[in-house]
Amino acid sequence: MKITIALFSTLLLLSFMPVQQKKRIVFFGDSITQAGANKGGYIQRIDSMLKSSGKSAGYELMGAGIGGNKIYDLYLRMEEDVLAKNPDIVVIWVGVNDVWHKRTSGTGTDPDKFLRFYNAVIKKLRDKNIKVVLCTPAAIGEKTDFTNELDGDLNKYASFIRDLAKKNDCGLIDLRKSFLDYNLKHNSENKESGILTTDRVHLNEKGNQFVAEEMMKVLF
Amino acid sequence: MKITIALFSTLLLLSFMPVQQKKRIVFFGDSITQAGANKGGYIQRIDSMLKSSGKSAGYELMGAGIGGNKIYDLYLRMEEDVLAKNPDIVVIWVGVNDVWHKRTSGTGTDPDKFLRFYNAVIKKLRDKNIKVVLCTPAAIGEKTDFTNELDGDLNKYASFIRDLAKKNDCGLIDLRKSFLDYNLKHNSENKESGILTTDRVHLNEKGNQFVAEEMMKVLF
Amino acid sequence: MKITIALFSTLLLLSFMPVQQKKRIVFFGDSITQAGANKGGYIQRIDSMLKSSGKSAGYELMGAGIGGNKIYDLYLRMEEDVLAKNPDIVVIWVGVNDVWHKRTSGTGTDPDKFLRFYNAVIKKLRDKNIKVVLCTPAAIGEKTDFTNELDGDLNKYASFIRDLAKKNDCGLIDLRKSFLDYNLKHNSENKESGILTTDRVHLNEKGNQFVAEEMMKVLF
Amino acid sequence: MKITIALFSTLLLLSFMPVQQKKRIVFFGDSITQAGANKGGYIQRIDSMLKSSGKSAGYELMGAGIGGNKIYDLYLRMEEDVLAKNPDIVVIWVGVNDVWHKRTSGTGTDPDKFLRFYNAVIKKLRDKNIKVVLCTPAAIGEKTDFTNELDGDLNKYASFIRDLAKKNDCGLIDLRKSFLDYNLKHNSENKESGILTTDRVHLNEKGNQFVAEEMMKVLF
Repeated sequence: MKITIALFSTLLLLSFMPVQQKKRIVFFGDSITQAGANKGGYIQRIDSMLKSSGKSAGYELMGAGIGGNKIYDLYLRMEEDVLAKNPDIVVIWVGVNDVWHKRTSGTGTDPDKFLRFYNAVIKKLRDKNIKVVLCTPAAIGEKTDFTNELDGDLNKYASFIRDLAKKNDCGLIDLRKSFLDYNLKHNSENKESGILTTDRVHLNEKGNQFVAEEMMKVLF
Repeated sequence: MKITIALFSTLLLLSFMPVQQKKRIVFFGDSITQAGANKGGYIQRIDSMLKSSGKSAGYELMGAGIGGNKIYDLYLRMEEDVLAKNPDIVVIWVGVNDVWHKRTSGTGTDPDKFLRFYNAVIKKLRDKNIKVVLCTPAAIGEKTDFTNELDGDLNKYASFIRDLAKKNDCGLIDLRKSFLDYNLKHNSENKESGILTTDRVHLNEKGNQFVAEEMMKVLF
Repeated sequence: MKITIALFSTLLLLSFMPVQQKKRIVFFGDSITQAGANKGGYIQRIDSMLKSSGKSAGYELMGAGIGGNKIYDLYLRMEEDVLAKNPDIVVIWVGVNDVWHKRTSGTGTDPDKFLRFYNAVIKKLRDKNIKVVLCTPAAIGEKTDFTNELDGDLNKYASFIRDLAKKNDCGLIDLRKSFLDYNLKHNSENKESGILTTDRVHLNEKGNQFVAEEMMKVLF
Repeated sequence: MKITIALFSTLLLLSFMPVQQKKRIVFFGDSITQAGANKGGYIQRIDSMLKSSGKSAGYELMGAGIGGNKIYDLYLRMEEDVLAKNPDIVVIWVGVNDVWHKRTSGTGTDPDKFLRFYNAVIKKLRDKNIKVVLCTPAAIGEKTDFTNELDGDLNKYASFIRDLAKKNDCGLIDLRKSFLDYNLKHNSENKESGILTTDRVHLNEKGNQFVAEEMMKVLF
């Protein structure tokens, strides 16, 4: 009898507790983010870290990366792939293809267009009261002697993103800076890939872990 | 007294006549269309032709061209620059920069992205019940011996637009074809510009007149 | 005894006959020519045709093709790879990479430089009294509806080579024209490869045979 | 009579004195060197410095720069423009266009080709017993925050030249390094031009003076 009452009281109590709403985080980007949602990818690793630290119940992580995407591709598909999911936080990680495709296929993004579309993406998210966190593009080549072919242009677009974060009061995960710092310490042989990337751009195991850790610092 | 009654009757009559609604046509494109809205430009010439033929009262023409625009730039600004103007008809003329900028600045548009954004632009217009008329890009070079550097790629994008017009049941003004035909007849010296263009791309006086006439055939 | 005298007389006779000097032909070019020297390649096929028609004794064919070569690469290595072999005839087939690499790696050849180096190559050969035969670049894509991306530029360089042949009184094997004609007849499905090429550029079996036949017409 | 003898003795003496042979230095390069031979240019400034320091009699300076030249252009014209002048020393300054033209016209130079042609140029000079001094390309943009678009690629080609100098035991004037150091000290506003260049590449007055001084250190 006593037990029944105790159980009842507990249930009663629970029914008055606020339903704990999970915060939904969408990771919005290119092939790096597409792979990040796979097993061993940086999004899965963030999920595991949240579980280990007991914060898992508070967050729901979703990948929204598509290979080859540039900033204007994000703008085109953001209604369907991001806004429709009603996220609380959106982490944007884009920029590598905007620079890289200038060299590989003549279809990169002009600096002024990059800024215009990025601003438009941020505005649409902020209009829905979504928290926005920006990432700088990490790397196209890991050499530390300043001879990665596209470093200058990549630094320029990374600097745009830092400015955008500041002007729009967004969070910033400065992967460009973190990757450079990491390579200066751990890439003494001046290799062009194999430290945090498999192919100068896409993340290897260590790279996914590193990104997960860098994102944890800013996101939680 | 009689006069007053007559006047009153007339006013009464007028108040029951349908207000003749002008059809609003927006010309949506790049620098060629931007110049087309100026004195001597193709939009102004269409306006004059409408006046000469007494059809002027039925139409209102508006230019919405911005230099350097590619298909994704049209998509980005279409709400503000086109939809906000509540047009009945939109004439889209784009494609030169999507091809040309591959060569000049490494920032052209990938074929699949061109199609995706063009489809998105058409869809947004059709959803508002707006009549859509597509133009193929006219020229990057007027030589007739098939040695204009970018002809192959320009033909490819022109062919995309013909397909889009057919699939979406849009009107088509095939300027690419018209320009080639005109040059085959009138450019016997195989000049790279100076026939319908000033600089291989932008229209000279004759070019603006020619485009105005080609558009008249399809639009009215 | 009689036999010995007869043999001696024969040998004596032979020793006065002119040694029949084989004409040495060097095929000088890029990866297409490099493959042309392999089994089934166009050079091997020309050799077989010469054998079939009993002309084999008069000619010696040598391949001097290296993958990725542009006109200035030919100039750089012509002393060692061509002049050192003391040829009677040199067949030059180059131009695809000079155009193609503009798109793939930003390292094609400017039109004026193409002409300057090509002239220098011809001059060096003519100074040694070597007969020179020029080939136009055959194809980068086999589509027949004028939408091969690089056709315009390729036609331009082909036209340069026709002019060079005329001005320098060289032989001309107009492969560009032959390939276009062949595709118009045999590529009714407008395929981009698979007719004479495997991959838009390099020759398949039929392509090697076709080139061998086109060259036979001009060379012998 | 006395005078005649004195004169005779003097002439006799002179005829036994070694003829002081001027050392001929040819500056071999692109538009920067072409301008360097003009009034106020770096070659003229070196000449003035030699005069001021009384060393003028020992040297003869000649400009051999042509606008738009890349390493293979130097190779093509070196017989006529350099070897024919029988120089004692050749200062080679090239590389900007090999990198820059990748972006502006799709006609830069592949890294492996750059090395091959540069080696060939050095070899031809060394075979004639000419002293060779190499310069690294100075700048395409003077920003100091690592956002000059082509810095990575320019650093790569500069590093090639340092290696070539070492392997071939040539002199080295490391203008790339000097310009970076100078800008770090004097370009606190992170301007893209106007410090040592007029337009990110070509030298202003200060730039010509700076290059002249840097060259003096190594050459004399």
